[in-house]
Amino acid sequence: MRKSIATVSLSGPLSEKLTAIATAGFDGVEIFENDLLGGPLSPEEVRLRCADLGLGIDLYQPFRDFEAVPADVLARNLRRAERKFAVMERLGADLLLVCSSVAADAVDDDALAAEQLRQLADRAADHGIRIAYEALAWGRHVSTYDHAWRIVEQADHPALGTCLDSFHILSRGSDPKGIADIPGEKIFFLQLADAPLMAMDVLQWSRHYRCFPGQGGFDLAPLVAATVRAGYQGPLSLEVFNDVFRQAAAASTAVDALRSLLLLEESAGLSALPAAPVPSGIAFAELTAADTEPLRGVLGALGFAHTARHTWKPVELWEQGEARILLNTGVGGRRQGPALTALGVETSAPQLAARRAEAVLAPVVPRRRAPLDAPLDAVAAPDGTEVFFCRTGQPDYPSWTGDFTDVPPSAVPGGQGEPAPVPASVPVSATVRHIDHIALTQPWHQFDEAALFHRGVLGLAADDSLDLADPYGLVRSRAVASPDGGVRIVLNVAPAPDADDTRLQHIALATDDIVGAARRLKEQGAGPLPISANYYDDLDARHEFEPGRLATLAELGILYDRDADGEFYHCYTPTIGRVFFELVQRTGGYRGYGAQNAAVRLAAQRLQQH
Amino acid sequence: MRKSIATVSLSGPLSEKLTAIATAGFDGVEIFENDLLGGPLSPEEVRLRCADLGLGIDLYQPFRDFEAVPADVLARNLRRAERKFAVMERLGADLLLVCSSVAADAVDDDALAAEQLRQLADRAADHGIRIAYEALAWGRHVSTYDHAWRIVEQADHPALGTCLDSFHILSRGSDPKGIADIPGEKIFFLQLADAPLMAMDVLQWSRHYRCFPGQGGFDLAPLVAATVRAGYQGPLSLEVFNDVFRQAAAASTAVDALRSLLLLEESAGLSALPAAPVPSGIAFAELTAADTEPLRGVLGALGFAHTARHTWKPVELWEQGEARILLNTGVGGRRQGPALTALGVETSAPQLAARRAEAVLAPVVPRRRAPLDAPLDAVAAPDGTEVFFCRTGQPDYPSWTGDFTDVPPSAVPGGQGEPAPVPASVPVSATVRHIDHIALTQPWHQFDEAALFHRGVLGLAADDSLDLADPYGLVRSRAVASPDGGVRIVLNVAPAPDADDTRLQHIALATDDIVGAARRLKEQGAGPLPISANYYDDLDARHEFEPGRLATLAELGILYDRDADGEFYHCYTPTIGRVFFELVQRTGGYRGYGAQNAAVRLAAQRLQQH
Repeated sequence: MRKSIATVSLSGPLSEKLTAIATAGFDGVEIFENDLLGGPLSPEEVRLRCADLGLGIDLYQPFRDFEAVPADVLARNLRRAERKFAVMERLGADLLLVCSSVAADAVDDDALAAEQLRQLADRAADHGIRIAYEALAWGRHVSTYDHAWRIVEQADHPALGTCLDSFHILSRGSDPKGIADIPGEKIFFLQLADAPLMAMDVLQWSRHYRCFPGQGGFDLAPLVAATVRAGYQGPLSLEVFNDVFRQAAAASTAVDALRSLLLLEESAGLSALPAAPVPSGIAFAELTAADTEPLRGVLGALGFAHTARHTWKPVELWEQGEARILLNTGVGGRRQGPALTALGVETSAPQLAARRAEAVLAPVVPRRRAPLDAPLDAVAAPDGTEVFFCRTGQPDYPSWTGDFTDVPPSAVPGGQGEPAPVPASVPVSATVRHIDHIALTQPWHQFDEAALFHRGVLGLAADDSLDLADPYGLVRSRAVASPDGGVRIVLNVAPAPDADDTRLQHIALATDDIVGAARRLKEQGAGPLPISANYYDDLDARHEFEPGRLATLAELGILYDRDADGEFYHCYTPTIGRVFFELVQRTGGYRGYGAQNAAVRLAAQRLQQH
Repeated sequence: MRKSIATVSLSGPLSEKLTAIATAGFDGVEIFENDLLGGPLSPEEVRLRCADLGLGIDLYQPFRDFEAVPADVLARNLRRAERKFAVMERLGADLLLVCSSVAADAVDDDALAAEQLRQLADRAADHGIRIAYEALAWGRHVSTYDHAWRIVEQADHPALGTCLDSFHILSRGSDPKGIADIPGEKIFFLQLADAPLMAMDVLQWSRHYRCFPGQGGFDLAPLVAATVRAGYQGPLSLEVFNDVFRQAAAASTAVDALRSLLLLEESAGLSALPAAPVPSGIAFAELTAADTEPLRGVLGALGFAHTARHTWKPVELWEQGEARILLNTGVGGRRQGPALTALGVETSAPQLAARRAEAVLAPVVPRRRAPLDAPLDAVAAPDGTEVFFCRTGQPDYPSWTGDFTDVPPSAVPGGQGEPAPVPASVPVSATVRHIDHIALTQPWHQFDEAALFHRGVLGLAADDSLDLADPYGLVRSRAVASPDGGVRIVLNVAPAPDADDTRLQHIALATDDIVGAARRLKEQGAGPLPISANYYDDLDARHEFEPGRLATLAELGILYDRDADGEFYHCYTPTIGRVFFELVQRTGGYRGYGAQNAAVRLAAQRLQQH
């Protein structure tokens, strides 16, 4: 279907918004009046700009407080409308959105509203313009879509139809089933917005918290499907008032927006995107650093061994169980300290996964490949992390590990003449089984986009968003995971807008022996992060442990949580650059990430920084 | 009365919070458990730190989900309580806050709740500890203060009393009059928080939006007065969960917090602060710049004349009507461009005003004075702007203008050998009458503090907070003004956290002839800021003007608004450094600031910057 977006959904001046919208690939726009009023472009120039960009002007909006008023007010309102018709003719826009009135002088009289809207439509028709009448959820007398439709039906004018808006419908808990009762040709427009489920004043909710479909708590697919089944022929158009998008770069917001519509279309059964299986695990995590020496020390202490090196790139492979870490020194001084720059996800169909990713607007990462390298498709997540689609060590597909050659134990480099801090390639009893999860701090304006990206590209499901108390503010945190927990990614947003180089990232490693793993860390002088003794007094108050257990946890800085399904033990290494490691042990069916302990862990990490 | 604050109200680790709280001048603290759990200090060390700082530990909190449970849960809960009593003994805290239960296993049985709380109090008493039972507004079975009190009354144990919390009481719309029915000695604690009036889920409201008394919409004074009349002897204690304060510097938040309690005490009739008359006008605005040449050009174009210079400082006085601007070049390269660094307010009693300011913790600005200089008392507002208390040109008090000597017209400096861009000291027909208002962009974390400061120090009243649409985000804006409009200050917060050097400020000048004043600006090449022609099309749609009027407004970039009481015309100069000027003409009793036009003006200013 045709796809459109209201200019109010993006930041910046109108001309920059239009460029971003066209570049993302939309077909049309709703021109939001304030964007026209503040800008230097005349309506004719906006028309030309849109034509140059291949964008249709699908709607001009909003026209407010028109209907069901005394005669003298009607005259003024018709005069006002005529002036807007003139602007629309200059713009080349032929559909005007009229919102149900919130004015104190409007009366509760459907017949009067219908009669006056008929007059408006009659005048509009003289200019080749049509009117789409919409119920605002907080309209004074008309606040539901079926009520607005009854008035449109009563007015019975060919230039008058209704506009449906998912936010106004779903925020009031209205049932979209009734859309089936509206003739499709009388649905002139369909505006789409999601929102987190919040118990709050609906006007404030609408003006500040709307988000793109799939980023909130509404179920938009049945509404869209019902509208299309009713015979609606117009565009799917986004209208999102959001405090964050107002500040974010228009170009990336526009891509996020179009991706949300593509995924909505798919879930409403209106289009078929390339399908791909949900990945089954994390194949590797890649850390980039000019100086990998501190990382090698920690990896060794964690029990990893340096097993291979890339055939022609300065990349080392470190392994333990199914956990694989790449250390990349090929970026020189590009970053201050180590950073997690890429991760591989394990999938049975890498090429399908890449095709799906591309279809939902994931930017494909250009690769430098040598002739014999395994094919390795990658896309960039919103925070810049590269996501590779891997099929590791299977006979039916070239494995990325084929680009690596084994390192003989004696050949492990240990710095210029210095011994490696641990005998890295000496086998140790593998206590780490695999990568449990990856946690990535997002740019503050891309939190919702990131969750939708990982859902749409990788097929992960999003948990609820949590607020974690850091000593210097609340950290928003939301996990996306595959149903079986094979792939888990935690998306965080730091309280204050951090610079890119300070956004923390971490790799959580699953172990069956947290005490043994933590003890080795301690013996190697690589942690664990010390945790306040007061935390263990509190643990003792909340839970009963077998004798000695609590002392062991306290000695090794191991945190503890439990839920209805199982238990969770976890501890941390110190932070190196932007990166730290977590060791986690899950028992039973514990599904979480120890959010209960986040405040204590964050306080301990702040202390480490001071 | 004794004044206290919960550590959760401030940012940072516990030790920094305690230092900030003591430095501000509080008598005591509530130790919020998470602050203890995450930190490196043992309870004994926290006790010692508080003692060193002269802070009493007035409360330990919170203890959750205790009462009205089955027997096996009660046993676990009593075990948990015993562990907390042990921590409190180490801390030297003798009052524990118990919140009404939100647990799924709690039953709706007041007698059972009372019986179990009695058991808890009995055990607490063995440790010399008392229990303060509080109704959370979202408690499962107990959510009102009178209900909590009935349970405490029924339990009838000397170590069990109630805790009143203004947020929990007022957010539910409970009437604080009922506090009179509680014996004062059974009110063990009083927690105070304000909040903006919002229609939203009360738990989210409480956890994110609480603010200090006087910064929100609740009327706390009657509640405090009723509690004290009931015989309450404990401290006034702040407990504020606020996303912004969690990020702001603890030291300044603590001062803001104590100021709010001082003003609350005054308004509840519990203390008498030095009183001072509300200032009657703005005596001057001072602009600081290394190079004042661009400012002199604009001032000349606005009709100002350079009339005097300071006897010994590099400060020029420019005047027109009652509007006075000081240009200060004495700061060298300290700032990038011109900035508004000080303003004088006109008061009949400068010394009284200064005494009041000091009493409500306004930092006094140290002055370099020559022996003959007029006394000039100043305090620093939260954003750093210096506020001087002036009495200009009155025989009964030394005037600050006495420190200036007149400039003969021919002696006006015009740069090194260059002519001044306008003949500054040549008298022009004075179209500017006085300074209408000053607008100051605040650091993002001091918006609420700034409004309370100007209310408490200057006696100004605050308007509602507005959201203004800038192309790159919403600008929060709130005006504080004297009842007659003699002093008006608009406090803004930019959407993204700007650096100090980019926070815009402006001076609005009142004129009776906006067209003449704007025309002169244009003739001198100093503006006005061009406004989009589309805005005037919209004005034409919304209002009817006499023939030619709209063309004049459009030609001169004059914006227009009206309300029930009158009309408002305004236009802008270009921005120089951080500063621009506005010309405003009010007719009738128009009280606002043209918020209706803010989006268009902000878009025009962004365009000018590009």
